[in-house]
This record gives sequence, C-alpha cells and structure tokens, in this order.
Amino acid sequence: MRPENVVLSEDGKSVVIIDQTQLPNRLEYLSLVTPEDFYEAIKALKVRGAPAIGICAGMGLYVTMNGLGDADREKFLTEMHHIAAYINSSRPTAVNLFHALRRVESAAMEYPGTDTAGMLAAMRKECTAIQDEDIAMCRAISEYGLTLVKDGDGVLTHCNAGPLATSLYGTGLGTLILGAEKGYKFHAYTDETRPLLQGARLTAYELDKAGIDVTLICDNMASIVMKQGRINACFVGCDRVAANGDTANKIGTSGVAVLAKHYGVPFYVFCPSSTIDMECKTGADIKIEERDPEEIKSKFYTEPMAPASVKCYNPAFDVTDAELITAIVTEKGICRYPYSESIPALFGKEKKC
Amino acid sequence: MRPENVVLSEDGKSVVIIDQTQLPNRLEYLSLVTPEDFYEAIKALKVRGAPAIGICAGMGLYVTMNGLGDADREKFLTEMHHIAAYINSSRPTAVNLFHALRRVESAAMEYPGTDTAGMLAAMRKECTAIQDEDIAMCRAISEYGLTLVKDGDGVLTHCNAGPLATSLYGTGLGTLILGAEKGYKFHAYTDETRPLLQGARLTAYELDKAGIDVTLICDNMASIVMKQGRINACFVGCDRVAANGDTANKIGTSGVAVLAKHYGVPFYVFCPSSTIDMECKTGADIKIEERDPEEIKSKFYTEPMAPASVKCYNPAFDVTDAELITAIVTEKGICRYPYSESIPALFGKEKKC
Repeated sequence: MRPENVVLSEDGKSVVIIDQTQLPNRLEYLSLVTPEDFYEAIKALKVRGAPAIGICAGMGLYVTMNGLGDADREKFLTEMHHIAAYINSSRPTAVNLFHALRRVESAAMEYPGTDTAGMLAAMRKECTAIQDEDIAMCRAISEYGLTLVKDGDGVLTHCNAGPLATSLYGTGLGTLILGAEKGYKFHAYTDETRPLLQGARLTAYELDKAGIDVTLICDNMASIVMKQGRINACFVGCDRVAANGDTANKIGTSGVAVLAKHYGVPFYVFCPSSTIDMECKTGADIKIEERDPEEIKSKFYTEPMAPASVKCYNPAFDVTDAELITAIVTEKGICRYPYSESIPALFGKEKKC
Repeated sequence: MRPENVVLSEDGKSVVIIDQTQLPNRLEYLSLVTPEDFYEAIKALKVRGAPAIGICAGMGLYVTMNGLGDADREKFLTEMHHIAAYINSSRPTAVNLFHALRRVESAAMEYPGTDTAGMLAAMRKECTAIQDEDIAMCRAISEYGLTLVKDGDGVLTHCNAGPLATSLYGTGLGTLILGAEKGYKFHAYTDETRPLLQGARLTAYELDKAGIDVTLICDNMASIVMKQGRINACFVGCDRVAANGDTANKIGTSGVAVLAKHYGVPFYVFCPSSTIDMECKTGADIKIEERDPEEIKSKFYTEPMAPASVKCYNPAFDVTDAELITAIVTEKGICRYPYSESIPALFGKEKKC
C-alpha cells in the first residue's frame, strides 16, 4: 500500500495530492507540475502536515527539474537551487520542507556523473526514499503504540496527526489505523479542535475511512466522555518536544492532558524522534504562535459569531507539562517520565519500553 | 434602571424583547402582542434563559388578556387558562415558564372582585413583581460575588448567565457587571461555548456593552490562559444543583472546573437558591439532555465541517462534582464545601459567608 495524499506519477512529470482544504466535503485530487503549482499548494495548506509538506516539496523539485529537458551540469544545478529556494519560501517555518529540499538537492550534487538523466534518477530515488522512510517511521510508531492499548478500547484524539499529515498510518492516529488493519475494534472520540476544526474535518474523515468507529465531539465534551468511562487512553501528535518532555502541540492539548490526569486516563504523545529538540530545555523555551482573531470570530461561518469590537486570544499551540504525559512514543521506542532520563537513553539506543 | 431584554409597555398592550437569535450582529427588538407571538418567541429561542422566559411568559399572559376587552369573570378565567396552557407548551421543560404563568393566573383568580379591570391590574402587578424579584435576586447574588474577587482580577466565564438570560445583572455575569458599575477593572476571558456559541454571541456582547475588558477564547484555550496566570477566578451559572452540591450546567463546565483545580484557581457557581434541588441527591440523578448532531456538524457554517457518515455525541449539559466547586453563590448567601452541610444551613437561614 502506498500513501494517497502525495503521489509521484510513474513518468515523474507530476505529483498528485489530495486537496485538504476541500475535505470533508469533496475528495479532490490536484496534479502539480510547475514550481508555482507546488508553491501555491503548500502556501494555501492544500497539502499540510510537516512530513507531508516535506515529501511533496522534495518530489516537486524532482518533477520540475524533470520537465526542463537536457542541460549541462552547471546550468542544471543553478536552476535546481533557484527552484528549491522558491518552493522553500512557501512556508519558511516548516523545518521538514527545508530538510527535504536539501536532501533532494544533495542527491543531484553528489551524483558522480554529469548526465541530466543520472542526476534526475538520483533525485527521484531520494525523494521517494523520504516518503518510504516516513512510512516506515509511522509504522514503527504505530507498532509501539499498539503495545499500549487493547482491543475494544476507547481512545480520545485531539487535532489531526494521521495519514494526510504524514504517510500511510500517521503518528497520533497510526496506532488506531494499524490496529484496525489487525482487527482491533477501537472506539475513537475525536475532539473537533477549534478554531480550524482539524479534528472534525480531517481526523473524523480519516478514521471513518479506515473503518474505525468514530464519534465527533466538541472540545469541551472531553471531560464528560472521560468521566463516563468511555476513554481508556488519549492519543495526540506533537510539534516539538523539549529535552525534559514538555510537549508543544495544537492548542487544547494541555487541557486534555489535565483532564486525563484527573480522570486517571493515560495520555500518550506520538512523534518521530526528530521532533525531540534537545536544544530546547523546557516548554518555557517554546514560542507559541498567535494567529488571526478572525479564525475564532468569523471563519467558516455564514456571518460573524462574536461582536466586532471584542478582542480574541488565538494561540495556535500550547505546552503540556512533562508530568502530565504518560509516555512519548517514537519510532525508536517508548519514553516514560522522568523524560530527562528516558529521552537521552532513547538517543543512546537504550530503549525504555 | 430597568431590564432591556423583556419590557412591558406602559399601556400593557405589548411586550418588547431583544431577539437573541440575531445577536451579536443585529440588536433587534420584537413587539409581542398575540398568544402566538409569545409562543413562537419562546419556542424559537428569541427569548432564552429560564428566568427571562418566565418573565416574558407572565407578561405575555397579562398582555394577551388585556387585549381581549371586557368579559364576565368565568369567561375571563377560562380564556386565561386556555392561553396560559398554550404559552406553557412552547417549552415544556423550562420550570420557570410554568411557575410564572401559574403565579399570574393565581393573581387573577384570587382577585376578590369580578371586574375585568381589577383582575387585569392584579395580573400586571404580579408579572411585574416576578421581574422585580429577579432583579433583586441577581443584585444580591452579584453583591455576594463581589466579596470573592478584587479589582483587576482576571475572570474566566463559560456559556451565558447574564442580563439577557435573567434581569439586569444576571447570575454568573452579575458580579462582573455590578463590579464594573462600582469601578472595578476586571479582565474577562470568555469561552465561546461550542456548539451553540452562547459565550461568543451573548456573553462577549454583554460584557463588552457593560464596558468590561473582554477577550474571547475557544473552549480549548481555557487551559493556557489559566497556566499563564491570567485567571484569578472562574464564574459560571447553573441549571440544577443537587443536594450534595453536584452542579449541572452547560456542557464543558466540568472541564473548566477540573482545569481550575489543577491550576489552583477558585471555581464559583452563581444561582438563585431555587436552583438547588433538594429532591436530587447527587449529580447522578440529573438526566443529561442530548441534542441534534447537526449543531456540531453544520449549524452556523457555510458548509458541513464533518463527514456526513460520522456520529456525534452532543450532550447539552454536564455535571461538575461538588468537590471541584469552591463555592456556590446564591441570593441567600455563599455555600462552601461540604455542601451537604452548607446547603441545608442556607435554607435554615444560617448563612455561611
């Protein structure tokens, strides 16, 4: 099985993506060919999720170079750097985007010959490898995740960390999707995740598509479903993990973690080990992005739902304190509190499972 | 100062209400004259909030009888009971509606004379008294509330328990509004309160109108603002309080209470003492209403925000455990935990303040 969200065509002339801005109402595929196509698709969030963006950008660099025809080596590399810089500028803060473009550029630069066909073949191999590695990483995370739950469990999710954002299984949703393939009957409760509704629009869509029993709730209903005993575990992805285990993720994640602790429900974070930032000592070092108030007041609505004169506070992320996190699940293994010990051990290959 | 949400005209021929379904985009007044006008206004939530519904219905019964002209006593009472039953059927679960109509009917029935003018005068006096009592009760609750906070405090609110739902000050919002009149500079953080957005549409509107510094947040942002130290107290109204202090209120209230406990923030419930139901031993006896899934999936939106095939769980209320509530503030005084002692003491007039 191959990912459907970002697909390189056989002839290497295009990348076909699912337009995530149209979900859940329309499953539309877009064919991207020119550098401008890739720039616009990333900028407009038609492809979103840091790993998926990286994969799409890497393939985009190959596809656009493939369409240029023969050229001498110097001219080829100059044009390639130019296009890579342009695609990279579409979302300058997404680190996967930069890393993926650099890997595909390096493949061409390090190719020992001077023929265009050889450089292109090296680029194709590299951008495909990035996706293959992400598939394997998500699969490994999901296999570890399955050791933490049992058949029939109720699992609460927040935001979206599924196949659309990554490859095949995803991180936070991977355990549910892999489990469903293996015959587990999970009951997912999906926070809608205001203000941008990634839970309602994307997670509910992905879990439903995977044949998982999914119930959509508003964010403020997490407390009642935990109190009623419907939830055996909470699963979230994350954007950055500090060296002490403090975890930045979509706004509302810390509230779910506090509720989970109160009701005695395990709270698990799923991420590639590359998300752990050892340069960042604690969550206090993580800057929280504030976004447009109109996302709260008027976006998606037929008319504004708040007085125009009222202020909004719209942080995109929050930090969950390490002591609220039961375990952090990576492709290298599972870390448990205290993370100041288990995280270095993870990178020292001494897995704490 | 008199309430603006429900106003009996001088000539007793109409009741003018604010159409709450149009807020915050349009401040529209509706003049209600016929029994059908009152029935429709209550049914369609143009007037909402249990106390406000009761007041409007009581005035409605007087206004419609006032428009019928002279009749003999028997005919008058028969017609009055007929109209009262009709208005009462608009929202059969709202207990204030039933009580208010019964009070206004009783005023006419107990009038010693047989003249229509005398019966109508008694009805007018009674329906005005219901509103006056509600004003005094909200004022008393708000005065007690002011003993719990200090100038400059940050206060988090959930749902709407303000003047629109009651009279003048409100219950949960009364302390903020009375405080503002007295020169307190509060900083309100208002949960938008999904799915029906009463916080965004009504509370933000009411606090802004009262000159209070108000910041709208999504429900899932309550954790970050408490963690950041912006919140000194949480204020909510309630729909029913059990004898042990367990409190049913708008969905999401229990989650706010858990967060408040975790972050060491006091959590206060404001209500008339009539909301305390001594027949109801604990929160487990309170039935939670489930509402239409489309409120989560599609209401207010330009197009649906969740897949059509996905289930929703949409409870309208949740129960907050008594031990999470710092105090319950009524017009008779302030109860503190353990409520199984302080609530009976309240009704025994031995206030615990």
